[in-house]
Amino acid sequence: MAVSLAERLAMPAGGKIVLLVMDGVGDIPHPDFDENTPLSAARTPNMDALAPTSALGRLTPIVPGVIPGSGPGHLGLFGYDPLEHEIGRGVLEVLGLDMDLRAGNLAARANFATRDAAGIITDRRAGRIPTETNVKLVEMIRSAVNIPGYEIEIKSGMGHRFAVVIRGENLADGLTDADPHHDGEPLLEIKATRPEAENAAKIANELLAQANAAIAKEHPANTMMLRGLSCAPDITPFGDRFKINACAIATYPMYRGIAKLLGMSLVPTGETIEDNFRTYLDAFEKYDYFFIHIKPTDAAGEDGDFPAKLACIEQVDAALPILLEKKPDVLAITGDHSTPILCSGHSWHPIPALVHSEISGRDGLPRYTEAHCRVGSVGLMDSKHLMTVLLSNAKRLDKFGA
Amino acid sequence: MAVSLAERLAMPAGGKIVLLVMDGVGDIPHPDFDENTPLSAARTPNMDALAPTSALGRLTPIVPGVIPGSGPGHLGLFGYDPLEHEIGRGVLEVLGLDMDLRAGNLAARANFATRDAAGIITDRRAGRIPTETNVKLVEMIRSAVNIPGYEIEIKSGMGHRFAVVIRGENLADGLTDADPHHDGEPLLEIKATRPEAENAAKIANELLAQANAAIAKEHPANTMMLRGLSCAPDITPFGDRFKINACAIATYPMYRGIAKLLGMSLVPTGETIEDNFRTYLDAFEKYDYFFIHIKPTDAAGEDGDFPAKLACIEQVDAALPILLEKKPDVLAITGDHSTPILCSGHSWHPIPALVHSEISGRDGLPRYTEAHCRVGSVGLMDSKHLMTVLLSNAKRLDKFGA
Repeated sequence: MAVSLAERLAMPAGGKIVLLVMDGVGDIPHPDFDENTPLSAARTPNMDALAPTSALGRLTPIVPGVIPGSGPGHLGLFGYDPLEHEIGRGVLEVLGLDMDLRAGNLAARANFATRDAAGIITDRRAGRIPTETNVKLVEMIRSAVNIPGYEIEIKSGMGHRFAVVIRGENLADGLTDADPHHDGEPLLEIKATRPEAENAAKIANELLAQANAAIAKEHPANTMMLRGLSCAPDITPFGDRFKINACAIATYPMYRGIAKLLGMSLVPTGETIEDNFRTYLDAFEKYDYFFIHIKPTDAAGEDGDFPAKLACIEQVDAALPILLEKKPDVLAITGDHSTPILCSGHSWHPIPALVHSEISGRDGLPRYTEAHCRVGSVGLMDSKHLMTVLLSNAKRLDKFGA
Repeated sequence: MAVSLAERLAMPAGGKIVLLVMDGVGDIPHPDFDENTPLSAARTPNMDALAPTSALGRLTPIVPGVIPGSGPGHLGLFGYDPLEHEIGRGVLEVLGLDMDLRAGNLAARANFATRDAAGIITDRRAGRIPTETNVKLVEMIRSAVNIPGYEIEIKSGMGHRFAVVIRGENLADGLTDADPHHDGEPLLEIKATRPEAENAAKIANELLAQANAAIAKEHPANTMMLRGLSCAPDITPFGDRFKINACAIATYPMYRGIAKLLGMSLVPTGETIEDNFRTYLDAFEKYDYFFIHIKPTDAAGEDGDFPAKLACIEQVDAALPILLEKKPDVLAITGDHSTPILCSGHSWHPIPALVHSEISGRDGLPRYTEAHCRVGSVGLMDSKHLMTVLLSNAKRLDKFGA
């Protein structure tokens, strides 16, 4: 309701908005680091300069206690209710690799892994093989796989990751993963969770069998796994919903994927934070909404690496003056979820958020940290409401009622 | 759900409640005034005396980021979900002027404006003409307008404002405004947004044409505009819903209008804050719920006038001892929305709220300001929940479950 309200009230003119997502930025105090979080321990003079004249607060990504994946985490930030729109991880991965996905196609994330003689997965990332090895293995699989009546498109991603699109008759989602999600367990048979997906399960298992036969003698990547098998959802494009010309600046496929799914323009960018911010400067005139995605904060959190997460935050801060060369009317800095060092993974903890505009409110708080965000004027709200707040800050949302 | 719960649990006996609404009171720190808000800069010894033994908190009028009009802002304070009950502005205006409105009648807000020779609206308020001029112009229109089969009732409001009720066959809402909402644009043709409203659009445009011909040679008010064309909604009266004998003490038509729509008794009052508070003293025995509405805080906010908003808050504070001569069991001080000086208009920023009763909780906070309300025990809640809090403070709400 709240979201459709935003759709109804959104106006086609107003200020420029930047949503800077430090993936997984939120954290909890760590006893080994003086009860600091990476954000509170980091040296962040540029964010500190913004904080006092910003409104701080916190976002609940889904509902309290629920740990979001990257898909729902971002859907919320983009003003969609993540409980209403479930997007398969496979769909996102496939879109992020610029693969063509149409209604009725089945998308999947795939990765190379190491399996021992007993059939047990010993390394779900196959020692994080280089991308070149990935490309070679994908070519081997392409040549080997042949399922009559079905077209199998396979494309390499980064490191051990790749993606698959299966096209043909009678495919549907509602499938379990082949990936056991933990080392030390065998590769799983893909199963249908509903009758309509029985054929899709059969085809996916056949694909796995043929592919794994083809690479069985390789090392360390002697197995492929599939997960997140899914079909594309029906969702209102972001630009139609909020009447704003939006683009995404993201290095990682997954995040370009979700932006593409929502109809945002993908602006080619480089690998570094500085690249991302320079890409924004170049695209400044062309768009009114910029989603800028920074991945390494999350990767460091997943690794439980406090210094690495802190360093990434400091890099973002050090690069921030590049972005501010063309200051947007509204700047939001937040994450899609928290990835606390103590969790070594995504968590449910509210995400610190900073909203800066002429009319954001000026909380007078000294820094953008989890603790300061707890007492900021934005309060604690669901991520799905952030977009409405940003639109109002940009004077892009009409009054509700008279 | 929460609201229907209140309806189910409300008990017909208990304490007296005063809801003191300083319209648009909420604000954000202003850089030109030492990062103060009008509320934090104001000298408010009487509210300061209440604050430490009160519960402070903040209200979200609709959902985060959404800017409410006065209608939805007040509906929330009165315990109705503003997303469930949309009330046309025309309906409110007409009720506030004590005009008779029945099912099938069409209500509209009207105002006088200045139009140049090219047909462009140059001043949507016609230089804020005095009410006497308004009365004279309305009389001219009344004499001139004649639409066979339709009864047109026109009544002057304050300044440049008036209201219209159209009675007759085949009227419906779903009409656009004639008011362009910005100076520098021409008067608009009223259009039907659904087929049922086609005839209503025709009649309203005919009324406009006849009226504007009648006053074309006047100055500065040579044009009338219509907006908020609407029919009365179906809504459970406040007294039935919450089992309380309620009255409204409000100087401005709009706010008397919404109170009347909800079935509150309208107590005649004067123009000043002191008048409003003395009216309360006089009516004390007769009612158990008093909605007291103070307009100038909002007007000053809309004008972006910090000193005027501050002065109005100080006037309310200075007059507060009058109200406290007969201290209600529960006193709530809040607004229907924020109207920050930096926005010069309604905003989405949470509204500071003070709830004082023997059992409200005693937060020990020194003053009723936006910053103190951020850390008060009431927290941040939707406006629509305030009524339940007030009923429980007044011991008028039964336990839910055993």
